[in-house]
Amino acid sequence: MLKYEYIAKEIMNLIEDKDLRQGDKLPSLDELVSQFEVSKNTVIKALDELQSHGLIYQVRGSGIFVRGRRQKGYINMMEIQGFNSMLREFDLTSKVLELKEVIPSETVQAHLQIDADQPVYYLKRLRYIEGRIFCIEESYFDKNIVMYLNEQIAEESVFNYLTNNLKLQISFLDHYLRVGKLNQQNAAYLELQEGDPGIQVESIFYLANGVPFDYSKIIYHYEESQFFIQGNSYYNLMN
Amino acid sequence: MLKYEYIAKEIMNLIEDKDLRQGDKLPSLDELVSQFEVSKNTVIKALDELQSHGLIYQVRGSGIFVRGRRQKGYINMMEIQGFNSMLREFDLTSKVLELKEVIPSETVQAHLQIDADQPVYYLKRLRYIEGRIFCIEESYFDKNIVMYLNEQIAEESVFNYLTNNLKLQISFLDHYLRVGKLNQQNAAYLELQEGDPGIQVESIFYLANGVPFDYSKIIYHYEESQFFIQGNSYYNLMN
Repeated sequence: MLKYEYIAKEIMNLIEDKDLRQGDKLPSLDELVSQFEVSKNTVIKALDELQSHGLIYQVRGSGIFVRGRRQKGYINMMEIQGFNSMLREFDLTSKVLELKEVIPSETVQAHLQIDADQPVYYLKRLRYIEGRIFCIEESYFDKNIVMYLNEQIAEESVFNYLTNNLKLQISFLDHYLRVGKLNQQNAAYLELQEGDPGIQVESIFYLANGVPFDYSKIIYHYEESQFFIQGNSYYNLMN
Repeated sequence: MLKYEYIAKEIMNLIEDKDLRQGDKLPSLDELVSQFEVSKNTVIKALDELQSHGLIYQVRGSGIFVRGRRQKGYINMMEIQGFNSMLREFDLTSKVLELKEVIPSETVQAHLQIDADQPVYYLKRLRYIEGRIFCIEESYFDKNIVMYLNEQIAEESVFNYLTNNLKLQISFLDHYLRVGKLNQQNAAYLELQEGDPGIQVESIFYLANGVPFDYSKIIYHYEESQFFIQGNSYYNLMN
Protein backbone atom coordinates (compact mmCIF):
# COMPACT_ATOMS: atom_id res chain seq x y z
CA MET A 1 0.00 0.00 0.00
CA LEU A 2 1.37 3.42 -0.95
CA LYS A 3 1.69 6.08 1.72
CA TYR A 4 -1.14 8.24 0.36
CA GLU A 5 -3.39 5.16 0.22
CA TYR A 6 -2.60 4.48 3.86
CA ILE A 7 -3.52 8.07 4.75
CA ALA A 8 -6.73 7.83 2.69
CA LYS A 9 -7.60 4.69 4.62
CA GLU A 10 -6.89 6.42 7.92
CA ILE A 11 -9.23 9.26 6.95
CA MET A 12 -11.91 6.70 6.04
CA ASN A 13 -11.43 5.10 9.47
CA LEU A 14 -11.81 8.52 11.07
CA ILE A 15 -15.13 9.01 9.25
CA GLU A 16 -16.29 5.55 10.32
CA ASP A 17 -15.14 5.83 13.94
CA LYS A 18 -16.74 9.24 14.49
CA ASP A 19 -19.81 8.15 12.48
CA LEU A 20 -19.56 11.29 10.34
CA ARG A 21 -22.36 11.94 7.84
CA GLN A 22 -22.93 13.88 4.63
CA GLY A 23 -21.88 17.50 5.18
CA ASP A 24 -19.92 16.92 8.41
CA LYS A 25 -16.60 18.74 8.44
CA LEU A 26 -13.26 16.94 8.56
CA PRO A 27 -10.06 18.39 10.10
CA SER A 28 -8.32 20.95 7.88
CA LEU A 29 -5.45 20.07 5.55
CA ASP A 30 -2.93 21.47 8.04
CA GLU A 31 -4.50 19.55 10.90
CA LEU A 32 -4.38 16.31 8.89
CA VAL A 33 -0.72 16.98 7.99
CA SER A 34 0.26 17.37 11.64
CA GLN A 35 -2.03 14.53 12.83
CA PHE A 36 -0.54 11.97 10.41
CA GLU A 37 2.98 13.45 10.34
CA VAL A 38 3.28 13.24 6.55
CA SER A 39 3.89 15.81 3.85
CA LYS A 40 1.18 18.15 2.60
CA ASN A 41 1.45 16.52 -0.84
CA THR A 42 0.68 13.09 0.58
CA VAL A 43 -2.44 14.38 2.33
CA ILE A 44 -3.54 16.23 -0.83
CA LYS A 45 -3.14 13.04 -2.89
CA ALA A 46 -5.09 11.07 -0.26
CA LEU A 47 -7.90 13.66 -0.31
CA ASP A 48 -8.04 13.64 -4.13
CA GLU A 49 -8.30 9.85 -4.03
CA LEU A 50 -11.18 9.98 -1.54
CA GLN A 51 -12.89 12.71 -3.54
CA SER A 52 -12.65 10.71 -6.76
CA HIS A 53 -14.46 7.86 -5.01
CA GLY A 54 -17.25 10.14 -3.81
CA LEU A 55 -16.30 9.86 -0.13
CA ILE A 56 -15.51 13.52 0.56
CA TYR A 57 -15.76 16.89 -1.13
CA GLN A 58 -13.48 19.88 -0.77
CA VAL A 59 -14.72 23.45 -0.76
CA ARG A 60 -12.05 26.05 -1.47
CA GLY A 61 -11.67 28.45 1.45
CA SER A 62 -14.15 26.53 3.56
CA GLY A 63 -12.90 23.01 4.32
CA ILE A 64 -13.19 19.31 3.69
CA PHE A 65 -16.57 17.61 4.12
CA VAL A 66 -17.90 14.09 4.27
CA ARG A 67 -19.98 12.81 1.40
CA GLY A 68 -22.44 10.07 2.36
CA ARG A 69 -21.64 6.88 0.54
CA ARG A 70 -23.28 3.93 2.21
CA GLN A 71 -27.05 4.10 2.28
CA LYS A 72 -28.41 1.36 4.50
CA GLY A 73 -30.46 -1.17 2.58
CA TYR A 74 -29.46 0.20 -0.83
CA ILE A 75 -27.34 -1.59 -3.40
CA ASN A 76 -24.50 0.79 -4.17
CA MET A 77 -23.97 0.47 -7.92
CA MET A 78 -20.54 2.12 -7.92
CA GLU A 79 -19.02 -0.30 -5.46
CA ILE A 80 -17.19 -3.42 -6.47
CA GLN A 81 -18.11 -5.65 -3.61
CA GLY A 82 -20.25 -8.67 -3.02
CA PHE A 83 -23.72 -8.18 -1.56
CA ASN A 84 -22.36 -9.68 1.66
CA SER A 85 -20.30 -6.58 2.18
CA MET A 86 -22.75 -4.02 0.75
CA LEU A 87 -25.74 -5.28 2.69
CA ARG A 88 -23.86 -6.34 5.77
CA GLU A 89 -26.65 -5.45 8.19
CA PHE A 90 -28.70 -8.25 6.64
CA ASP A 91 -28.58 -12.03 6.59
CA LEU A 92 -27.73 -13.05 3.03
CA THR A 93 -27.78 -16.61 1.71
CA SER A 94 -27.43 -18.26 -1.70
CA LYS A 95 -28.76 -21.40 -3.31
CA VAL A 96 -26.83 -22.80 -6.27
CA LEU A 97 -29.13 -23.96 -9.06
CA GLU A 98 -26.45 -24.82 -11.58
CA LEU A 99 -22.67 -24.76 -11.89
CA LYS A 100 -21.00 -26.14 -15.00
CA GLU A 101 -18.47 -25.54 -17.74
CA VAL A 102 -20.05 -24.35 -20.97
CA ILE A 103 -19.11 -22.86 -24.32
CA PRO A 104 -21.04 -19.59 -24.00
CA SER A 105 -23.19 -17.76 -26.53
CA GLU A 106 -21.66 -15.23 -28.92
CA THR A 107 -23.00 -12.38 -26.79
CA VAL A 108 -21.18 -13.66 -23.71
CA GLN A 109 -18.03 -14.32 -25.78
CA ALA A 110 -18.12 -10.70 -26.91
CA HIS A 111 -18.62 -9.36 -23.36
CA LEU A 112 -15.71 -11.47 -22.07
CA GLN A 113 -13.60 -10.90 -25.20
CA ILE A 114 -12.89 -14.64 -25.55
CA ASP A 115 -12.63 -17.06 -28.48
CA ALA A 116 -15.52 -19.18 -29.70
CA ASP A 117 -14.13 -22.47 -28.38
CA GLN A 118 -13.16 -21.27 -24.92
CA PRO A 119 -15.06 -22.76 -21.98
CA VAL A 120 -16.33 -20.64 -19.11
CA TYR A 121 -17.87 -21.39 -15.73
CA TYR A 122 -21.62 -20.84 -15.79
CA LEU A 123 -23.17 -20.28 -12.36
CA LYS A 124 -26.85 -19.78 -11.63
CA ARG A 125 -27.89 -18.86 -8.11
CA LEU A 126 -30.90 -17.70 -6.17
CA ARG A 127 -30.02 -15.17 -3.50
CA TYR A 128 -31.95 -14.45 -0.34
CA ILE A 129 -32.08 -11.51 2.06
CA GLU A 130 -33.37 -12.32 5.54
CA GLY A 131 -34.66 -15.57 4.06
CA ARG A 132 -36.69 -13.82 1.36
CA ILE A 133 -35.89 -14.27 -2.35
CA PHE A 134 -34.01 -11.25 -3.56
CA CYS A 135 -32.60 -12.01 -7.01
CA ILE A 136 -31.75 -14.59 -9.66
CA GLU A 137 -28.14 -14.38 -10.78
CA GLU A 138 -26.45 -15.93 -13.80
CA SER A 139 -22.67 -15.45 -14.09
CA TYR A 140 -20.10 -16.41 -16.69
CA PHE A 141 -16.47 -16.53 -15.53
CA ASP A 142 -13.52 -16.68 -17.92
CA LYS A 143 -11.82 -19.99 -17.00
CA ASN A 144 -8.40 -18.61 -17.91
CA ILE A 145 -8.76 -16.22 -15.00
CA VAL A 146 -11.18 -17.95 -12.62
CA MET A 147 -9.45 -21.30 -12.95
CA TYR A 148 -11.46 -23.16 -10.35
CA LEU A 149 -14.93 -22.87 -8.85
CA ASN A 150 -17.12 -25.28 -6.94
CA GLU A 151 -20.57 -25.40 -5.34
CA GLN A 152 -19.34 -24.70 -1.84
CA ILE A 153 -17.57 -21.50 -2.93
CA ALA A 154 -20.69 -20.50 -4.87
CA GLU A 155 -22.92 -21.05 -1.81
CA GLU A 156 -20.65 -18.75 0.17
CA SER A 157 -19.04 -15.60 -1.28
CA VAL A 158 -17.61 -15.80 -4.80
CA PHE A 159 -16.37 -12.23 -4.34
CA ASN A 160 -14.32 -13.14 -1.26
CA TYR A 161 -12.91 -16.21 -3.06
CA LEU A 162 -11.86 -14.14 -6.08
CA THR A 163 -10.19 -11.41 -4.05
CA ASN A 164 -8.81 -13.34 -1.06
CA ASN A 165 -7.92 -16.71 -2.58
CA LEU A 166 -7.34 -16.08 -6.29
CA LYS A 167 -5.93 -12.61 -5.43
CA LEU A 168 -7.75 -11.03 -8.36
CA GLN A 169 -7.80 -7.27 -8.25
CA ILE A 170 -11.20 -6.27 -9.57
CA SER A 171 -10.76 -2.70 -10.72
CA PHE A 172 -13.83 -1.49 -12.52
CA LEU A 173 -17.21 -2.58 -13.77
CA ASP A 174 -20.00 -1.53 -16.11
CA HIS A 175 -23.68 -1.97 -15.29
CA TYR A 176 -26.58 -1.86 -17.76
CA LEU A 177 -29.94 -1.58 -16.04
CA ARG A 178 -33.34 -2.02 -17.65
CA VAL A 179 -36.80 -3.01 -16.50
CA GLY A 180 -39.30 -5.37 -18.06
CA LYS A 181 -42.10 -7.75 -17.22
CA LEU A 182 -41.20 -11.12 -15.69
CA ASN A 183 -41.70 -14.28 -17.69
CA GLN A 184 -43.32 -17.29 -16.05
CA GLN A 185 -40.08 -19.01 -15.02
CA ASN A 186 -38.44 -15.98 -13.42
CA ALA A 187 -41.71 -14.99 -11.75
CA ALA A 188 -41.84 -18.48 -10.19
CA TYR A 189 -38.26 -18.14 -8.90
CA LEU A 190 -39.00 -14.71 -7.43
CA GLU A 191 -42.38 -15.80 -6.00
CA LEU A 192 -44.11 -13.14 -8.06
CA GLN A 193 -46.71 -13.18 -10.84
CA GLU A 194 -45.91 -13.40 -14.55
CA GLY A 195 -45.97 -9.83 -15.90
CA ASP A 196 -44.85 -8.26 -12.61
CA PRO A 197 -41.89 -5.83 -12.89
CA GLY A 198 -38.40 -7.33 -13.10
CA ILE A 199 -35.19 -5.29 -12.81
CA GLN A 200 -32.43 -6.65 -15.03
CA VAL A 201 -28.85 -5.61 -14.40
CA GLU A 202 -26.11 -6.84 -16.72
CA SER A 203 -22.62 -6.29 -15.34
CA ILE A 204 -19.11 -6.72 -16.71
CA PHE A 205 -16.24 -6.91 -14.21
CA TYR A 206 -12.70 -5.97 -15.23
CA LEU A 207 -9.26 -6.61 -13.78
CA ALA A 208 -6.77 -3.75 -13.31
CA ASN A 209 -5.27 -4.56 -16.74
CA GLY A 210 -8.62 -3.91 -18.43
CA VAL A 211 -9.43 -7.58 -19.07
CA PRO A 212 -13.08 -8.53 -18.48
CA PHE A 213 -13.42 -11.81 -16.57
CA ASP A 214 -17.00 -11.96 -15.28
CA TYR A 215 -20.23 -11.20 -17.09
CA SER A 216 -23.35 -11.49 -15.01
CA LYS A 217 -27.07 -10.97 -15.44
CA ILE A 218 -29.23 -10.46 -12.39
CA ILE A 219 -33.01 -10.20 -12.20
CA TYR A 220 -34.02 -8.44 -8.99
CA HIS A 221 -37.25 -8.75 -7.03
CA TYR A 222 -38.65 -5.25 -7.44
CA GLU A 223 -39.99 -5.05 -3.89
CA GLU A 224 -36.76 -6.26 -2.28
CA SER A 225 -34.19 -4.10 -4.05
CA GLN A 226 -33.32 -0.44 -4.37
CA PHE A 227 -30.23 1.16 -5.81
CA PHE A 228 -27.95 4.05 -4.90
CA ILE A 229 -25.83 5.81 -7.52
CA GLN A 230 -23.54 8.83 -7.19
CA GLY A 231 -22.67 11.22 -9.96
CA ASN A 232 -19.74 13.60 -10.25
CA SER A 233 -19.38 16.56 -12.52
CA TYR A 234 -16.58 16.83 -14.95
CA TYR A 235 -17.99 20.16 -15.97
CA ASN A 236 -14.55 21.76 -16.06
CA LEU A 237 -13.51 19.28 -18.73
CA MET A 238 -16.61 19.82 -20.85
CA ASN A 239 -16.70 23.59 -21.22
CA MET B 1 -9.32 26.42 -16.27
CA LEU B 2 -6.18 25.01 -14.69
CA LYS B 3 -3.41 23.70 -16.92
CA TYR B 4 -3.99 20.03 -16.06
CA GLU B 5 -7.71 20.48 -16.78
CA TYR B 6 -6.83 21.90 -20.16
CA ILE B 7 -4.61 18.87 -20.88
CA ALA B 8 -7.35 16.51 -19.66
CA LYS B 9 -9.74 18.21 -22.04
CA GLU B 10 -7.24 17.90 -24.91
CA ILE B 11 -6.93 14.16 -24.23
CA MET B 12 -10.73 13.87 -24.25
CA ASN B 13 -10.78 15.66 -27.59
CA LEU B 14 -8.15 13.23 -28.88
CA ILE B 15 -10.38 10.28 -27.85
CA GLU B 16 -13.39 11.90 -29.52
CA ASP B 17 -11.58 12.94 -32.72
CA LYS B 18 -10.01 9.52 -33.27
CA ASP B 19 -13.26 7.82 -32.17
CA LEU B 20 -11.32 5.63 -29.71
CA ARG B 21 -13.26 2.92 -27.89
CA GLN B 22 -12.99 0.83 -24.73
CA GLY B 23 -9.55 -0.83 -24.64
CA ASP B 24 -7.95 1.34 -27.35
CA LYS B 25 -4.46 2.50 -26.42
CA LEU B 26 -3.57 6.17 -25.94
CA PRO B 27 -0.09 7.66 -26.51
CA SER B 28 2.37 6.96 -23.69
CA LEU B 29 3.03 9.38 -20.85
CA ASP B 30 6.28 10.52 -22.51
CA GLU B 31 4.55 10.99 -25.85
CA LEU B 32 1.81 13.08 -24.22
CA VAL B 33 4.43 15.19 -22.42
CA SER B 34 6.20 16.00 -25.68
CA GLN B 35 2.96 16.40 -27.65
CA PHE B 36 1.48 18.96 -25.24
CA GLU B 37 4.82 20.50 -24.19
CA VAL B 38 3.96 20.49 -20.49
CA SER B 39 5.58 18.89 -17.44
CA LYS B 40 5.23 15.22 -16.63
CA ASN B 41 3.41 16.16 -13.43
CA THR B 42 0.76 18.08 -15.34
CA VAL B 43 0.09 15.12 -17.63
CA ILE B 44 -0.03 12.73 -14.65
CA LYS B 45 -2.57 14.99 -12.90
CA ALA B 46 -4.63 15.19 -16.10
CA LEU B 47 -4.59 11.37 -16.44
CA ASP B 48 -5.58 10.89 -12.79
CA GLU B 49 -8.47 13.29 -13.34
CA LEU B 50 -9.65 11.37 -16.41
CA GLN B 51 -9.27 8.05 -14.60
CA SER B 52 -11.31 9.27 -11.62
CA HIS B 53 -14.14 10.07 -14.04
CA GLY B 54 -14.00 6.61 -15.61
CA LEU B 55 -12.75 7.88 -18.98
CA ILE B 56 -9.41 6.03 -19.09
CA TYR B 57 -7.53 3.38 -17.16
CA GLN B 58 -3.80 3.03 -16.66
CA VAL B 59 -2.02 -0.31 -16.60
CA ARG B 60 1.41 -0.21 -14.98
CA GLY B 61 4.11 -1.25 -17.47
CA SER B 62 1.62 -1.51 -20.30
CA GLY B 63 0.06 1.86 -21.11
CA ILE B 64 -2.97 4.09 -20.97
CA PHE B 65 -6.27 2.86 -22.35
CA VAL B 66 -9.68 4.30 -23.16
CA ARG B 67 -12.61 3.36 -21.01
CA GLY B 68 -15.97 3.53 -22.78
CA ARG B 69 -18.20 6.10 -21.16
CA ARG B 70 -20.98 7.10 -23.48
CA GLN B 71 -23.30 4.26 -24.42
CA LYS B 72 -25.65 5.37 -27.16
CA GLY B 73 -29.27 5.39 -26.04
CA TYR B 74 -28.42 4.84 -22.38
CA ILE B 75 -28.95 7.32 -19.58
CA ASN B 76 -25.57 7.68 -17.92
CA MET B 77 -26.33 7.89 -14.21
CA MET B 78 -22.92 9.26 -13.24
CA GLU B 79 -23.11 12.27 -15.49
CA ILE B 80 -24.40 15.62 -14.42
CA GLN B 81 -25.97 16.77 -17.62
CA GLY B 82 -29.40 17.31 -19.00
CA PHE B 83 -30.95 14.63 -21.18
CA ASN B 84 -30.40 16.96 -24.12
CA SER B 85 -26.70 16.39 -23.83
CA MET B 86 -26.76 12.73 -22.76
CA LEU B 87 -29.16 11.61 -25.45
CA ARG B 88 -27.98 14.02 -28.10
CA GLU B 89 -28.58 11.63 -30.99
CA PHE B 90 -32.29 11.89 -30.28
CA ASP B 91 -34.97 14.54 -30.59
CA LEU B 92 -36.00 15.50 -27.06
CA THR B 93 -38.91 17.74 -26.15
CA SER B 94 -40.69 18.76 -22.95
CA LYS B 95 -44.21 19.77 -22.02
CA VAL B 96 -44.68 21.83 -18.87
CA LEU B 97 -47.67 20.66 -16.82
CA GLU B 98 -47.15 22.92 -13.86
CA LEU B 99 -44.74 25.59 -12.65
CA LYS B 100 -45.38 27.42 -9.39
CA GLU B 101 -43.96 28.55 -6.09
CA VAL B 102 -44.87 26.27 -3.20
CA ILE B 103 -43.96 25.58 0.41
CA PRO B 104 -42.78 21.99 -0.04
CA SER B 105 -43.44 18.92 2.10
CA GLU B 106 -41.18 18.06 5.03
CA THR B 107 -39.47 15.38 2.94
CA VAL B 108 -38.52 17.90 0.26
CA GLN B 109 -37.43 20.41 2.93
CA ALA B 110 -35.12 17.77 4.38
CA HIS B 111 -33.64 16.86 0.96
CA LEU B 112 -32.99 20.53 0.18
CA GLN B 113 -31.96 21.35 3.77
CA ILE B 114 -34.28 24.37 3.89
CA ASP B 115 -36.54 25.89 6.53
CA ALA B 116 -40.24 25.13 6.83
CA ASP B 117 -41.43 28.51 5.54
CA GLN B 118 -39.10 28.75 2.54
CA PRO B 119 -40.75 28.71 -0.89
CA VAL B 120 -39.33 26.63 -3.77
CA TYR B 121 -40.09 26.39 -7.46
CA TYR B 122 -42.12 23.28 -8.23
CA LEU B 123 -41.93 22.12 -11.85
CA LYS B 124 -43.77 19.20 -13.38
CA ARG B 125 -42.94 18.19 -16.94
CA LEU B 126 -43.58 15.40 -19.39
CA ARG B 127 -40.54 14.59 -21.49
CA TYR B 128 -40.52 13.05 -24.93
CA ILE B 129 -37.92 11.20 -26.97
CA GLU B 130 -38.53 11.15 -30.72
CA GLY B 131 -42.06 12.29 -29.93
CA ARG B 132 -42.75 9.32 -27.62
CA ILE B 133 -43.43 9.85 -23.91
CA PHE B 134 -40.31 9.02 -21.98
CA CYS B 135 -40.74 10.23 -18.39
CA ILE B 136 -42.71 12.32 -15.90
CA GLU B 137 -40.49 14.68 -13.96
CA GLU B 138 -41.22 16.64 -10.78
CA SER B 139 -38.50 19.02 -9.56
CA TYR B 140 -38.15 21.27 -6.55
CA PHE B 141 -35.62 24.11 -6.83
CA ASP B 142 -34.38 26.11 -3.84
CA LYS B 143 -35.46 29.69 -4.66
CA ASN B 144 -32.46 31.14 -2.83
CA ILE B 145 -30.26 29.56 -5.51
CA VAL B 146 -32.54 29.22 -8.54
CA MET B 147 -33.90 32.71 -8.14
CA TYR B 148 -35.96 32.80 -11.33
CA LEU B 149 -37.63 30.24 -13.57
CA ASN B 150 -40.36 30.48 -16.18
CA GLU B 151 -42.29 28.24 -18.56
CA GLN B 152 -40.16 29.01 -21.57
CA ILE B 153 -36.97 28.02 -19.79
CA ALA B 154 -38.70 24.87 -18.53
CA GLU B 155 -39.81 23.94 -22.07
CA GLU B 156 -36.21 24.22 -23.21
CA SER B 157 -33.25 23.08 -21.11
CA VAL B 158 -33.29 23.90 -17.39
CA PHE B 159 -29.80 22.43 -17.17
CA ASN B 160 -28.40 24.85 -19.75
CA TYR B 161 -30.14 27.77 -18.02
CA LEU B 162 -28.67 26.83 -14.63
CA THR B 163 -25.14 26.39 -15.92
CA ASN B 164 -24.94 29.02 -18.68
CA ASN B 165 -27.18 31.79 -17.34
CA LEU B 166 -27.21 31.41 -13.56
CA LYS B 167 -23.59 30.15 -13.71
CA LEU B 168 -24.30 27.45 -11.14
CA GLN B 169 -21.57 24.87 -10.89
CA ILE B 170 -23.36 21.59 -10.30
CA SER B 171 -20.76 19.34 -8.73
CA PHE B 172 -22.29 16.10 -7.60
CA LEU B 173 -25.56 14.27 -7.29
CA ASP B 174 -27.13 11.28 -5.59
CA HIS B 175 -29.65 8.99 -7.28
CA TYR B 176 -32.02 6.57 -5.57
CA LEU B 177 -33.61 4.11 -7.99
CA ARG B 178 -36.48 1.77 -7.27
CA VAL B 179 -39.18 0.06 -9.30
CA GLY B 180 -42.87 -0.31 -8.60
CA LYS B 181 -46.22 -0.63 -10.32
CA LEU B 182 -47.72 2.46 -11.91
CA ASN B 183 -50.79 4.06 -10.43
CA GLN B 184 -53.63 5.10 -12.71
CA GLN B 185 -52.54 8.73 -13.11
CA ASN B 186 -48.91 8.02 -13.97
CA ALA B 187 -49.93 5.15 -16.26
CA ALA B 188 -52.16 7.59 -18.15
CA TYR B 189 -49.31 10.10 -18.54
CA LEU B 190 -46.96 7.37 -19.77
CA GLU B 191 -49.60 5.81 -22.05
CA LEU B 192 -49.28 2.52 -20.19
CA GLN B 193 -51.65 0.38 -18.12
CA GLU B 194 -52.16 0.73 -14.38
CA GLY B 195 -49.92 -1.89 -12.71
CA ASP B 196 -47.28 -1.80 -15.46
CA PRO B 197 -43.67 -1.34 -14.26
CA GLY B 198 -42.55 2.18 -13.38
CA ILE B 199 -38.95 3.17 -12.71
CA GLN B 200 -38.66 5.87 -10.06
CA VAL B 201 -35.43 7.82 -9.72
CA GLU B 202 -35.10 10.41 -6.96
CA SER B 203 -32.10 12.70 -7.41
CA ILE B 204 -30.49 15.40 -5.32
CA PHE B 205 -28.17 17.86 -7.07
CA TYR B 206 -25.44 19.69 -5.16
CA LEU B 207 -23.34 22.78 -5.81
CA ALA B 208 -19.56 22.68 -5.38
CA ASN B 209 -19.95 23.95 -1.81
CA GLY B 210 -22.06 20.90 -0.89
CA VAL B 211 -25.39 22.77 -0.83
CA PRO B 212 -28.32 20.82 -2.36
CA PHE B 213 -30.44 23.01 -4.62
CA ASP B 214 -32.58 20.65 -6.74
CA TYR B 215 -34.55 17.59 -5.66
CA SER B 216 -36.28 15.74 -8.45
CA LYS B 217 -38.42 12.65 -8.83
CA ILE B 218 -38.72 11.05 -12.25
CA ILE B 219 -40.93 8.16 -13.29
CA TYR B 220 -39.56 6.56 -16.46
CA HIS B 221 -41.42 4.63 -19.13
CA TYR B 222 -39.87 1.17 -18.71
CA GLU B 223 -39.77 0.43 -22.43
CA GLU B 224 -38.17 3.76 -23.36
CA SER B 225 -35.36 3.97 -20.83
CA GLN B 226 -32.21 2.09 -19.94
CA PHE B 227 -29.39 3.10 -17.66
CA PHE B 228 -25.60 2.87 -17.71
CA ILE B 229 -23.57 2.95 -14.49
CA GLN B 230 -19.83 2.59 -13.97
CA GLY B 231 -18.20 1.31 -10.82
CA ASN B 232 -14.64 1.77 -9.61
CA SER B 233 -12.79 -0.20 -7.02
CA TYR B 234 -11.35 1.40 -3.98
CA TYR B 235 -10.12 -2.01 -2.98
CA ASN B 236 -6.75 -0.63 -1.91
CA LEU B 237 -8.48 1.54 0.64
CA MET B 238 -10.62 -1.27 2.01
CA ASN B 239 -8.05 -3.93 2.80
